[in-house]
Formats: sequence, structure tokens, C-alpha cells
Amino acid sequence: MIEITDPRIDKYIMGLAPESDSLLLEMEKKAKASGFPIVDPLVGRLLYLLTRLKQPALIVEMGSGFGYSAYWFAKALSIRGKIVLIDKEEAHISHARKVFSDSDLFDRAEFRVGDALQVAREYQGIDLLFIDIDKHQYLDAVMAIAPMLAKNALVIADNSLWHGNVAEGMTDRDTVGIDKFNRHMFSSNDFFTSIVPLRDGVLLAYKLTES
Amino acid sequence: MIEITDPRIDKYIMGLAPESDSLLLEMEKKAKASGFPIVDPLVGRLLYLLTRLKQPALIVEMGSGFGYSAYWFAKALSIRGKIVLIDKEEAHISHARKVFSDSDLFDRAEFRVGDALQVAREYQGIDLLFIDIDKHQYLDAVMAIAPMLAKNALVIADNSLWHGNVAEGMTDRDTVGIDKFNRHMFSSNDFFTSIVPLRDGVLLAYKLTES
Repeated sequence: MIEITDPRIDKYIMGLAPESDSLLLEMEKKAKASGFPIVDPLVGRLLYLLTRLKQPALIVEMGSGFGYSAYWFAKALSIRGKIVLIDKEEAHISHARKVFSDSDLFDRAEFRVGDALQVAREYQGIDLLFIDIDKHQYLDAVMAIAPMLAKNALVIADNSLWHGNVAEGMTDRDTVGIDKFNRHMFSSNDFFTSIVPLRDGVLLAYKLTES
Repeated sequence: MIEITDPRIDKYIMGLAPESDSLLLEMEKKAKASGFPIVDPLVGRLLYLLTRLKQPALIVEMGSGFGYSAYWFAKALSIRGKIVLIDKEEAHISHARKVFSDSDLFDRAEFRVGDALQVAREYQGIDLLFIDIDKHQYLDAVMAIAPMLAKNALVIADNSLWHGNVAEGMTDRDTVGIDKFNRHMFSSNDFFTSIVPLRDGVLLAYKLTES
């Protein structure tokens, strides 16, 4: 494990951006109390900004957990935009639905329980694909869903540095999975790819070829 | 000074993205040999990706140096797009012009020598503003050019973590200048702001209000 970013840097940036959205704060509290992994607020802010830039009509999330990242995406969507949350755990999606129903974003969201690789395949013309499922499945996920991506789609994958383990050449299934995915995305002619070392690493890939 | 990102992480990401554009490689070599500061290749890739997402018609660069970041921007522009390079050093702009004239991007670029705060003011409807001038001038720069920004413009500022000095509360003019700029951008209602801890920190701000 490598400390990707110096913690004083994270603290400084966090101090610049105090959060006031009570639903986000509640979800952050729940994540901390239960030890459930969420993208942190700094990643949330990046997702929000990228979504505002991209103005997607359709976002599909593979691995939504209880909806923290989806909530950031949904806040950034225009009223025409839609986000599909997918998680294999009924309890997570049920909690996400509850959070969204307490907000004014409920109408922009669709909630699906199931295998993300199966469910995501049902959607055509995905403008923004977010991948946060089991780490050894990342490459399979992008291969399976690539045909469903719209022209100039944006693919975002969380944990692309996997605690720095990819830089240390660890050989466990998850590290190897993430590393294979990264190498595929950077060498593919279909995408232009970059990794942002924010929190656990956020991979950004812009689809170059038309679909 | 703080090491913002663990160097093993930078090395890993760099290894994923071998550069083949000979003009970029030449500029990187020149920067290394002369000790001239350029945004590094990883920041260059992020600029490219953001430009593809944003599809700006007009990019204005305040502080272009010899054109390394401008070259990344220009590569990402559509043929309708234009980038204005501004630097106070005639020699830098002259070198940038030479680099661009060796590429197929020359027609997308305009080359200006002068005080960036004065020159940038001549342009209306800026879709993407890049700030990389003297660090104590950042806040003045964004205040001066804000009226020239188009609706939903993207502002990108390099060195927003300034060797980590902002997180250590240093009180020299440059650190204070960057810190004031960061605080302004995060607290402004006109922008939604995020900092990416890539290299020396890249601030991204999305203009929320219409102009």
C-alpha cells in the first residue's frame, strides 16, 4: 500500500470546500460509521464538475453502493438527464432510493438490483459510464459495455490506483484486474485515457471513435 | 514543501502513457535541459481530455511559456476552435510559434506578447481560460477576466497547490497569492471549483452563472 496523496494536501483541499448538502453529509456519516467504501467528497466534486462539462443525457453506474456517487452525478444533471444506479445488493439500492426520495432528484434516477454487467447492457447510448464494481471485473465491464457507449462518451473508473498496489506490482486478483484494465484503456485506440491521483485514483477515458 | 503525490504513483501512470508526439517530446527535453517549468505530460493529458469534453471555441492562455500546454490544448481543439497564447517574453512566444509552425495546428493558434492581464481582456466569450502566470497575480487575473468568460466557461489554473506550501501556511507572496485565489474560487457563487492533486495541483472551476 502506498499513500497516494500526502494527507496534508487532502486536508487543505477539504478545508476549501465545506459541504452543506445535508443528504451528502448524512451519507458520509453513514459510510464512516459502517466502514462502507464511498468515493470521498473530493472525488464527488470532480464527478460533479465533469458531469456539468459533459452534460450527459444518460449516466449508467456499475456498482452504486448506497448512492453517494450517484447523488453527485444526479445533482449535476440537467432536468433532461437520467442516471441508472445498479448494485447487486438489494439493501444498497433500497437505501439509495430512500436518499433520492428525500431529495428533488428522484425523477432523474432509475434503481436497479442485479449483476451490473448484465443490467448495464440493457442501455443504449450511454454518455457517461461509471465503474465501481469488484476490481477484478473492470476489464470485463468495459469490454461488455463498450458497444453501448454513445459517441464521445466518458468512462470514469474509481480505485484505478488501488491503494497504490498497482505501482508496487502486487499479484493478487484485484490488483492484477485493475492493472490490466488501466493498460487496456491507455493502449486502446478507442479511448484517450488519464488517471487523476485523487483519493484512490480516478481513471478518466474519453471515447474517440464514433459508435 | 510537500511531496504532493508519491513519486511511485507518477511513475506508474507515466509508464501507462508513453508519448509518441515528437514535438511534445522535444519540448519536454528542452524544458528539462533549461529548467523551464512546464505542466508535465500527465497534466497535459488531463488538459487534452478536458478540452475534448468541453469543446471550446475559444481558449485563452495567460502565461504560455514556450507553448507546451497550448500544444496539448490545440491538439484537442476541433478545427473550428482557436487558442490564444500570451506570454510577456518575446522569446517564449517566438519559440511557441516555431513549434506550432512545425505542426498542423498553426492555424488554430494566435500568438501574443504582452501583459496577460491586459491582453486577455481583449477577448470576449472565452470558453476555456488557462492561468499560469506569476502566482501572486492569480486572483487579479481571474477578477479581471471574469467578465470575458462565456456561459459555462471552464477556468483551469496550474500550480494551485504550489509545492504544497499552501497546506503548510507559508506566508511568502506567491503562496499567499495562490491560497487567496483558491479560497476565492471555492467560495464564489459564480464557480464550482475542484483541485486535482496532479503534479503541482490543477484547479478546475466551472462557471455557474450566465454571462
